[in-house]
Amino acid sequence: MGVWPYLDCDLRLYAVEVLRIVAIPDSFKGSLRAADVAASLASGARAGAAQVGVPVDVAALPFADGGEGALDAIVDAWGVVVREVATTDALDRPVVARLGVSPDGRTAVVEAADANGLPQVSDVPLEPLRASTRGLAPLVLAACDAGVEEIVLFIGGSATTDGGAGLLVGLGADLLDADGHAVAAGGGGLLRLDRLDLSGLDPRVRGLRWRIACDVTNPLTGPRGAAAVFGPQKGADPDQVRELDAGLARLARVLAHETVVDHDDRPGAGAAGGLAAPLVALFGAELEPGWEVVADAVGARELLANADLVLTGEGRLDTQSLAGKVVSGVRAMTPASVPVVALCGEVAVDDATLSAAGITLALSIARGPETLDELTAGAAERLADLALGVTRFYLTVTVEKDIL
Amino acid sequence: MGVWPYLDCDLRLYAVEVLRIVAIPDSFKGSLRAADVAASLASGARAGAAQVGVPVDVAALPFADGGEGALDAIVDAWGVVVREVATTDALDRPVVARLGVSPDGRTAVVEAADANGLPQVSDVPLEPLRASTRGLAPLVLAACDAGVEEIVLFIGGSATTDGGAGLLVGLGADLLDADGHAVAAGGGGLLRLDRLDLSGLDPRVRGLRWRIACDVTNPLTGPRGAAAVFGPQKGADPDQVRELDAGLARLARVLAHETVVDHDDRPGAGAAGGLAAPLVALFGAELEPGWEVVADAVGARELLANADLVLTGEGRLDTQSLAGKVVSGVRAMTPASVPVVALCGEVAVDDATLSAAGITLALSIARGPETLDELTAGAAERLADLALGVTRFYLTVTVEKDIL
Repeated sequence: MGVWPYLDCDLRLYAVEVLRIVAIPDSFKGSLRAADVAASLASGARAGAAQVGVPVDVAALPFADGGEGALDAIVDAWGVVVREVATTDALDRPVVARLGVSPDGRTAVVEAADANGLPQVSDVPLEPLRASTRGLAPLVLAACDAGVEEIVLFIGGSATTDGGAGLLVGLGADLLDADGHAVAAGGGGLLRLDRLDLSGLDPRVRGLRWRIACDVTNPLTGPRGAAAVFGPQKGADPDQVRELDAGLARLARVLAHETVVDHDDRPGAGAAGGLAAPLVALFGAELEPGWEVVADAVGARELLANADLVLTGEGRLDTQSLAGKVVSGVRAMTPASVPVVALCGEVAVDDATLSAAGITLALSIARGPETLDELTAGAAERLADLALGVTRFYLTVTVEKDIL
Repeated sequence: MGVWPYLDCDLRLYAVEVLRIVAIPDSFKGSLRAADVAASLASGARAGAAQVGVPVDVAALPFADGGEGALDAIVDAWGVVVREVATTDALDRPVVARLGVSPDGRTAVVEAADANGLPQVSDVPLEPLRASTRGLAPLVLAACDAGVEEIVLFIGGSATTDGGAGLLVGLGADLLDADGHAVAAGGGGLLRLDRLDLSGLDPRVRGLRWRIACDVTNPLTGPRGAAAVFGPQKGADPDQVRELDAGLARLARVLAHETVVDHDDRPGAGAAGGLAAPLVALFGAELEPGWEVVADAVGARELLANADLVLTGEGRLDTQSLAGKVVSGVRAMTPASVPVVALCGEVAVDDATLSAAGITLALSIARGPETLDELTAGAAERLADLALGVTRFYLTVTVEKDIL
């Protein structure tokens, strides 16, 4: 009998998982769009991975909350060009507003402030009683013309307290006084509002799914209402605040008559000078936190649910950032065990706050004593370098652990 | 036959290793001692570990290279109080210099610049030909009185170009001219040097092990020598540079006669105005990079060889820092697979340089646009916060990997 060679072969199948890094920042206001920040973070992360020699999958996704930059973030993520719509500002002067339509043609996105925003009328004295949302109507109608099924409306930054009256009129509704005459435009006209005639309303607008990105919870009227809280910053003196509040109260009664629901106390009804109220009452609009609306639009949830490392950031990280804004939204969508690193122009919170918000590490792009101008001018390069270092650190630790 | 219960028990022994974090920074010049920086980093690291809930072993070790702060780092690591020795400065004025003696009484450490340094004579006009190392002698003799076996001499920052002549005289040697008279003090006196009489030398100094921490490689004389390269910053005009160079050349010949070895071309012989030359020639002194001498004195090597994460840093990280200084020394002593993170007042190098030097991540303590004064005033707190975040990030990644 010969001796047979004995082969002991232990075959195992290893699944080689490629680490997934997601760059999902806010814009750096006044300096970089969210897409630019995301691109810098992603290029740094890729360079860091190349140095360590570890294959990684890096996704760059611009993000935003309900504030300025939401439309930019969404159209950049969609990879579409914004359409321009000729309309009017809050004081009825010509202005060009933006409309984003998703690649599948099903969703439109609008920043209401393009048409009724405070910055657009900063060159003239504010007219809180006359300021109107009428300029929003051409945007909504353009969305209807584009054939969308859903309209996403970011409503922050408005100069108006007209309870959306102007928009309703622009869409074909009639707002009438007791004598059957149209009331004047603006929140001041609501004082004479008696009833609503929706017979002329463009039928398409009721067929839309309305989603309103809204980061405030104020009711329509009263001491926490649209007029009392936001009226003064739109130029209303105490008497005008009282008039606007009374007008919104009339609108609430008229809407309640129309819908058999009282929307006056609904949290968020007071957002954007009451703009949300009729959209909820008449069109069934849903009010959602801005970052959640953006997350859905850009497809952030699934990406973050499967991330191994998340890089986010914003120009200035403060306590507000950690309460319903981009950074806290990113954290909320990321599994608790996955590190979230925030790279910022300025980190203006203490560690107890960061820790409570679950932010693993927050860093400034400053390389030493530097001025705001230096930081602003070099932000893109500094972001890439910092993302490189953070990724190199992350991968060094990860690879080291894998070897052990 | 009954059915017997079958117990399948798989017993394994897991060794629970506690992660080791080493905080081993340079000082932040003009702001924090290395021991203060190390304490801030360590407290931040411990706080970060507590947040993640992972047990860690954190060591705080002040570090230094051959520059200012070496004695502080060593005595802080030893936990001893410096002794004060009354002596004279480079221009023969009374001054108090420091002597550190190790807890076991075997090693003394001295910063030569305490006695012959440029800062000590910055209040009067420089006298390059007269400036002398004589003030070092009382320090060496005090070390002998303390009974040490070894003396560690940091020789940077000198105001002298006397080739250590003053020290030799102070230790009992005679430097004589051709007529048998003592030559004048200072580098200028060396021009008349003819021979050395060591009969009066304190016998203890030859019994010492001399270790010289020296970060330059200049030879004693010639165009790269002590007089040509460092003379001008010590106040020597071109004529004086020529005189000093000629004097050092005479010293080299006299030393060669004494030791049958020519030390003129030896790299480092030109350090500290030629101070190293006679110590090497007569006492067998070893020249070593400053950071290596400090590493041995504070016991850094073993600690770093077993570290899982290393936190280092210095006030300003520049290309020099990465060439034979603290940060590069720490990197050299740490296994390549272990991340080294540098936390600094200012990061003044680009990533290519960092990467080439093997620094995993370098961060500034700046939290945004801040002035140097703000950074300096808040350095300790900012360092602790940054170390906390970095440690939290590190442990989050480490723990996550362990679960997978």
